[in-house]
Amino acid sequence: MKVLVIGTGAVGGFYGALLAKQGVEVSVLARSDYAHIQRHGIAVHSDTGLGDFHFRPAAVVRRGAELPDPPDYVLLCVKVVEGVDRIGLLRDAVGPATAIVLICNGVEVESGIAEGFPQHELISGLAFICVTRLAPGRIWHQAYGRLALGNYPSGVSAKTQALAAAFARSGIACVTSDTIVTARWQKCLWNAAFNPLSVLSGGLATGDILAHQETLVRALMAEVAQIAQAVGHPLPPDAIDRNIDSTRQMPPYKTSMLLDFEAGRPMETEAILGNAVRAGRRAGVALPQLETVYALMKLRELQLTQARAGATHTNPPSIPNTCPVM
Amino acid sequence: MKVLVIGTGAVGGFYGALLAKQGVEVSVLARSDYAHIQRHGIAVHSDTGLGDFHFRPAAVVRRGAELPDPPDYVLLCVKVVEGVDRIGLLRDAVGPATAIVLICNGVEVESGIAEGFPQHELISGLAFICVTRLAPGRIWHQAYGRLALGNYPSGVSAKTQALAAAFARSGIACVTSDTIVTARWQKCLWNAAFNPLSVLSGGLATGDILAHQETLVRALMAEVAQIAQAVGHPLPPDAIDRNIDSTRQMPPYKTSMLLDFEAGRPMETEAILGNAVRAGRRAGVALPQLETVYALMKLRELQLTQARAGATHTNPPSIPNTCPVM
Repeated sequence: MKVLVIGTGAVGGFYGALLAKQGVEVSVLARSDYAHIQRHGIAVHSDTGLGDFHFRPAAVVRRGAELPDPPDYVLLCVKVVEGVDRIGLLRDAVGPATAIVLICNGVEVESGIAEGFPQHELISGLAFICVTRLAPGRIWHQAYGRLALGNYPSGVSAKTQALAAAFARSGIACVTSDTIVTARWQKCLWNAAFNPLSVLSGGLATGDILAHQETLVRALMAEVAQIAQAVGHPLPPDAIDRNIDSTRQMPPYKTSMLLDFEAGRPMETEAILGNAVRAGRRAGVALPQLETVYALMKLRELQLTQARAGATHTNPPSIPNTCPVM
Repeated sequence: MKVLVIGTGAVGGFYGALLAKQGVEVSVLARSDYAHIQRHGIAVHSDTGLGDFHFRPAAVVRRGAELPDPPDYVLLCVKVVEGVDRIGLLRDAVGPATAIVLICNGVEVESGIAEGFPQHELISGLAFICVTRLAPGRIWHQAYGRLALGNYPSGVSAKTQALAAAFARSGIACVTSDTIVTARWQKCLWNAAFNPLSVLSGGLATGDILAHQETLVRALMAEVAQIAQAVGHPLPPDAIDRNIDSTRQMPPYKTSMLLDFEAGRPMETEAILGNAVRAGRRAGVALPQLETVYALMKLRELQLTQARAGATHTNPPSIPNTCPVM
């Protein structure tokens, strides 16, 4: 089995290293970390039973075309954010028989890839994991690690089974799902509520958000569930209660969007929230609370863009008129 | 005419100085700025035709009971925020014939005062002004200045007329309103939309908020208009369009809540947003978008409280578990 992992951040580095540990031939396509990984490979420190291990890729490339042969699988492990050309990254990495595997957050993240590669098998994947890229080629696996894989739009092929089996041999749980798109909506239920709230609140942990505004959290989750239902992916009736209960049992927790925000990285606002809202609009579902949170996130992003632009000017643009009473 | 101004911030300092300039006997109740104002009075610099002027109060007191005689009017010019005991401030400042004048933002800010002082004439006032307290006793009047005064719950008494006339003589526009509570809802239309959005966006000016999320702004305003209608204060049908148009013509503008936020001062979340939401709930109006924004503001305030508490600890409480993918 030959695998190319595109993206050597936390997720790509970790799952690539895990497969390599099982004897899979894993190459990586690295962008900013290319030089380091070319030289040193990827070191994984895991706080779980997986221990510490080191991964030297079969090949480290900047573009898929540099590989001698097309891989059996391309794992696309990049965030779905503006400025990352997922189609372009895949374009010269796939051969006629290569399966494309998406491991990312968000909903409706497959359709663009499916349209771009109509002849290719498309496997959609969800990672339930706490993992951080500490530095180029240095990955810290804190907890969890479960993967869910399934074909898009539905089903589980033999090739998906084979990949799942390879992951399962590596020591993490990997389940396959006939209805991976539904699983994506189920994950979105949590993400669309807690991720933006953690950012808009200025950095609260999930426990505080839940303890103080459970009504809002439930309302946002209910709107996501309505969208999922309307687009043909109804969630279990107890999905919201289960999410609330499990969040309550988690230790105080920073969401991925909050960590991106704090690190100055692009946030997955569109993949998680924008795509959900657009799906709801298409289906004619009223989403007053999700629309509000989405609009606020877009304003927050605009302000960050302004602040970055201002920081590069000698004279940052100031607001001429400030008025305490209006 | 004897006036006691409670609060020597931007609003109290400015309007007190203005009345004194017309020969009204104006005393002030100062809190944090007491020592400075006792010694130096209040200096107003105005960018408008009013020019620069200096105000030495007839008396500077810490408590109303220190005044030799009760005033004809008490102007309560303090923000309606937690930790400011408006009833307590008024309690020993009023005599049997003293009229209480509230100059503040927000809706439903009169009822607590009316219940606390059922025998007193209560005048409700709105200030449309750009004014800043630069330092103790130093006020910068940037623009505007219009006042609207009316009796609570409705009507315009002779005493209100007399006060309005004194203000009008001082060079600012002062109108009286038979329906000041409706005027308050009308002002809230703008405030409940732009104030929280400016804070939750991380500091955007009004022009940017409007340019990028006009739909959200209009939706929030529409919910405020529905509440006003439901509680017996219907707004003119073109109120939203007029607010949008005038905001578009304003220069880029920081809201009062954003300035409070940036200065680390308490924000008028409850007076502006919380009171509006509670009125809507009482009246059975569905407020999905205002409720969302209100809940987010409460989370933002919670985070600020946590950050302040953390800053006073040697070891700030950290979030134990951070997880990039969930």
